[in-house]
Amino acid sequence: MSASNTTGNNEWFKLPNLPELIRSVIQIKSKLLRNALAEAVGTFILLFIGTSIIAQLHLPHGTINTWVQINVGWGFAITISVTSVSHISGGHLNPAISVLFFSMGMLDIISLPIYIIAQHIGAFFGAAATYVIYRATKNIAKIVDAINNYDGGIRAVSGPNGTAGIFATYPQPYMSPLSTYLDQIVGTGLLAFCVLVIIDQRNKIPSAAHPLLFGISLLVIGCGFGVNCGYPLNPARDFAPRIFSYFIYGKEVFTHPWRYWFLVPIIAPTLGALIGGWFYILLLGSHIPDQESLQEESQTKER
Amino acid sequence: MSASNTTGNNEWFKLPNLPELIRSVIQIKSKLLRNALAEAVGTFILLFIGTSIIAQLHLPHGTINTWVQINVGWGFAITISVTSVSHISGGHLNPAISVLFFSMGMLDIISLPIYIIAQHIGAFFGAAATYVIYRATKNIAKIVDAINNYDGGIRAVSGPNGTAGIFATYPQPYMSPLSTYLDQIVGTGLLAFCVLVIIDQRNKIPSAAHPLLFGISLLVIGCGFGVNCGYPLNPARDFAPRIFSYFIYGKEVFTHPWRYWFLVPIIAPTLGALIGGWFYILLLGSHIPDQESLQEESQTKER
Amino acid sequence: MSASNTTGNNEWFKLPNLPELIRSVIQIKSKLLRNALAEAVGTFILLFIGTSIIAQLHLPHGTINTWVQINVGWGFAITISVTSVSHISGGHLNPAISVLFFSMGMLDIISLPIYIIAQHIGAFFGAAATYVIYRATKNIAKIVDAINNYDGGIRAVSGPNGTAGIFATYPQPYMSPLSTYLDQIVGTGLLAFCVLVIIDQRNKIPSAAHPLLFGISLLVIGCGFGVNCGYPLNPARDFAPRIFSYFIYGKEVFTHPWRYWFLVPIIAPTLGALIGGWFYILLLGSHIPDQESLQEESQTKER
Amino acid sequence: MSASNTTGNNEWFKLPNLPELIRSVIQIKSKLLRNALAEAVGTFILLFIGTSIIAQLHLPHGTINTWVQINVGWGFAITISVTSVSHISGGHLNPAISVLFFSMGMLDIISLPIYIIAQHIGAFFGAAATYVIYRATKNIAKIVDAINNYDGGIRAVSGPNGTAGIFATYPQPYMSPLSTYLDQIVGTGLLAFCVLVIIDQRNKIPSAAHPLLFGISLLVIGCGFGVNCGYPLNPARDFAPRIFSYFIYGKEVFTHPWRYWFLVPIIAPTLGALIGGWFYILLLGSHIPDQESLQEESQTKER
Repeated sequence: MSASNTTGNNEWFKLPNLPELIRSVIQIKSKLLRNALAEAVGTFILLFIGTSIIAQLHLPHGTINTWVQINVGWGFAITISVTSVSHISGGHLNPAISVLFFSMGMLDIISLPIYIIAQHIGAFFGAAATYVIYRATKNIAKIVDAINNYDGGIRAVSGPNGTAGIFATYPQPYMSPLSTYLDQIVGTGLLAFCVLVIIDQRNKIPSAAHPLLFGISLLVIGCGFGVNCGYPLNPARDFAPRIFSYFIYGKEVFTHPWRYWFLVPIIAPTLGALIGGWFYILLLGSHIPDQESLQEESQTKER
Repeated sequence: MSASNTTGNNEWFKLPNLPELIRSVIQIKSKLLRNALAEAVGTFILLFIGTSIIAQLHLPHGTINTWVQINVGWGFAITISVTSVSHISGGHLNPAISVLFFSMGMLDIISLPIYIIAQHIGAFFGAAATYVIYRATKNIAKIVDAINNYDGGIRAVSGPNGTAGIFATYPQPYMSPLSTYLDQIVGTGLLAFCVLVIIDQRNKIPSAAHPLLFGISLLVIGCGFGVNCGYPLNPARDFAPRIFSYFIYGKEVFTHPWRYWFLVPIIAPTLGALIGGWFYILLLGSHIPDQESLQEESQTKER
Repeated sequence: MSASNTTGNNEWFKLPNLPELIRSVIQIKSKLLRNALAEAVGTFILLFIGTSIIAQLHLPHGTINTWVQINVGWGFAITISVTSVSHISGGHLNPAISVLFFSMGMLDIISLPIYIIAQHIGAFFGAAATYVIYRATKNIAKIVDAINNYDGGIRAVSGPNGTAGIFATYPQPYMSPLSTYLDQIVGTGLLAFCVLVIIDQRNKIPSAAHPLLFGISLLVIGCGFGVNCGYPLNPARDFAPRIFSYFIYGKEVFTHPWRYWFLVPIIAPTLGALIGGWFYILLLGSHIPDQESLQEESQTKER
Repeated sequence: MSASNTTGNNEWFKLPNLPELIRSVIQIKSKLLRNALAEAVGTFILLFIGTSIIAQLHLPHGTINTWVQINVGWGFAITISVTSVSHISGGHLNPAISVLFFSMGMLDIISLPIYIIAQHIGAFFGAAATYVIYRATKNIAKIVDAINNYDGGIRAVSGPNGTAGIFATYPQPYMSPLSTYLDQIVGTGLLAFCVLVIIDQRNKIPSAAHPLLFGISLLVIGCGFGVNCGYPLNPARDFAPRIFSYFIYGKEVFTHPWRYWFLVPIIAPTLGALIGGWFYILLLGSHIPDQESLQEESQTKER
């Protein structure tokens, strides 16, 4: 699937190098605009794949996908979507990560809201695309019908026929509001911790390997912290699809299982990313010895 | 399993370096011919392994393989088969990808049909090889017997004893023709998007890592979009084995579950690859900043 | 999720590079202290994720996680936690490995106890953090209630409602004391063998790949040797969480299933790491030919 | 888990660098002897882990391991065991691969039988070690008792209480002798094909990645061709453990399910490796264009 060796010394007709021609015409010169586009497209890909993975678990009642595919699928969906835009916008795809980077002086004050808006737009359309695909297959999903059956016309967010969990996340029934905050702070904190471990140049991880390691980090976090709230860990991943699902399920998506639950996956991941990220900076990142100081040490020793 | 360090300063008898001797005699000088051979062999390997993975799921009624093995197995089967021929033909192994590369000026007008024909030949024999292996084990497969039991002699493509799904794909019963087109356009679109992300030199992914990332991409797409149609995503992967299965199951393979279904995995993936690939080019690929322009920007800043 | 390309020639406000500023102030100059901190933080991360993975298997009665997620999750948890501290302390995270490195002259006599104490402190708080998260979700865990129901008020370490296995490990009922020693010596021996294979510079594995291969090694060992004792393979991983669980479950954690079982995951892994590590050194590591001697050999041959 | 940064400018006591001291004394100068030792140790590790993975599937009746762990576990067991000896002997660990390399002029006529004998010795003790570990846990395994219960004292190779399948492989009851030959030729042929793809320097795969790709290849082959005979694919992996199991189960291990079945995993993999390997050489390896000829082609074109 690479183009290498497909061209040679033959003289047969070939279309012109359209991608480079088009690029020379349409390339966006504004850094801000191209970053916004990249964040939107990357988050679209992440949510389109991610919510479809949940749909494929949920709609056939777990006979196709199992939880391990949620973990592996979402993990590698991060790998793919971050890879696709990392050389344009850096591939945050998560407002909580953007806020963390702002706090570290790595993102300016204009880019921050632009990134966050772009991530939400991408996530909205990613969830919508999943709906189109799986709505088209309505006999399995029975999204509308099932809701009508279940609650007599008032759309069902949860319960045996509930399907809103494909788009936004909802906590397990046993969770209290406080425990959901804790769960999301911890989960996103670990994610942000891993992100800073991976991108810290003093840890010398080749940049081509970063997206794979981001994916592995999410996979592991899903294995340990996925059950309580479905690990949103990302305000855009949760809030934008929830807005989309409002047009399908009505306002219950903002009140189930309790009023203002929907704020938890916005507030807690943001707090969590800051806590987890600065936990890394203060406890580990600040103390990695520089190459030069290591050399000094060993020279001292040799003397 | 490498030959390094197995030769040294001993003087014991060793056969001559036959592979290099043979190579000097039989090496195919025609670029077109060697590319055709490579595409045929690579697609043969992909389909032989891939259809056997489905057979190992289907025939023991899911007691050996589960869906996660379909996702992981097909994903890494792509890794292996693309690796095996990428330095000869580029390792397309998929007519939809070849059409996309043609549209991008990366494949000439003579190579395009040659690649496609070679891919179909390889896929045909790959499916045939699976039949030979699993037909030999007829007591588990009961391919012919079961069909006779099931439909009184008219071979069964589907149903409890249907086994034609090992070779070609069939949509779930709830799918409408339109929704199958959508499903295949989307699935192959995402695959083509990922392929262009991975091979775009501006994304700086080492070429030795490409086949692994192609495999991971297919794995993820299978986790999110596998259930509706079995994710053929590749005209040669579906049509050539279907022709093969015609000789076993008869013409029903072209009419089940409806007349002209078999055209969907030919037309839709081709459209999908073009849409997904150009989606990447227009929205992302054209906007990745060049190394030079990044340097300029930072010089401007420093002044 | 990387910061590359997020800064450019714009002049918008950006916070100062706080992480580097802070680093210049708080960087720990004492090698011993920063190594101790790193071992504690790394082991905290490992145990927090690891015991949560077991909680997510155990508390929903296996409906979310299955054993493959234990293997994959713990494996990649090692990858992440070792990566996070490997450029500070080396990332042992396991007293048995530290003892092995001491025996090889790679760790001094003061660092050895400091590393071991730090690992225990990290593991203690990692287990405590899992308790906080999953205790908060008490309706699923019913940790205290279930124990009361089960044994009439005396906390249950094992049995249908036993939950102590989330923190420390307990052998299967069929194991005899001797066989648990054997099991842990063998499991940790294989782990130590793999660690030395991976870090031996003569095996030429790029250092950025080490944590991934450590994780894969643990994954494989869990597939082959996980069932008998739950593969602690690490004194700190078992003993420190056991002390934590003492405050929840009482002294039975030190006597179940028999008195002094808790010593097995301390003594046997330490012996095992020494045996497995030196098995590698004596049987393989000592015999890898040096680059120079290989060149000599081939020169001899050419003459 | 690496030793980097654990030494510095402190002056505390540290043991001498024993591994290098010992190496300078015991390093085996005979290339043949050290290669034999490496092949024996590497095959020991492979079989010890591999047969334990099967034991952990079989003895708890599939409640711990499932088939995906067999595929992943054996795949990565190859990765680990090949990595451990690849810089000494090349890491064949399989007589069929050694025969293929001999046929390609990569192994001399004295090393060939030495390698094969060493692989068998390693495999014998690897299976024996698994027996010791899982025999010690006899209540779960009930290896001897169960056999007695099953057949009144004559040891049971197969059936509900049969446990001999932990050590050597046995075909499914529906297989005919001919179909087992076919199955093993195909499986080992694909493995040998993959091995040559990976080590062919013209495919430019970094050598540190080879063991990982060998493992992925075996994983995929297990997903597609594991069910019929348990994919031995390796004469030493099957025959040496069968000899070991003779001392436990008696001569039935050589006659079940039919006389001379035990010859199939010896003869067929050897044939298969030759067929698959030379299939690669003739159809692909001989036709990969050299760097120079590619440059010529492009110069021709530019003129």
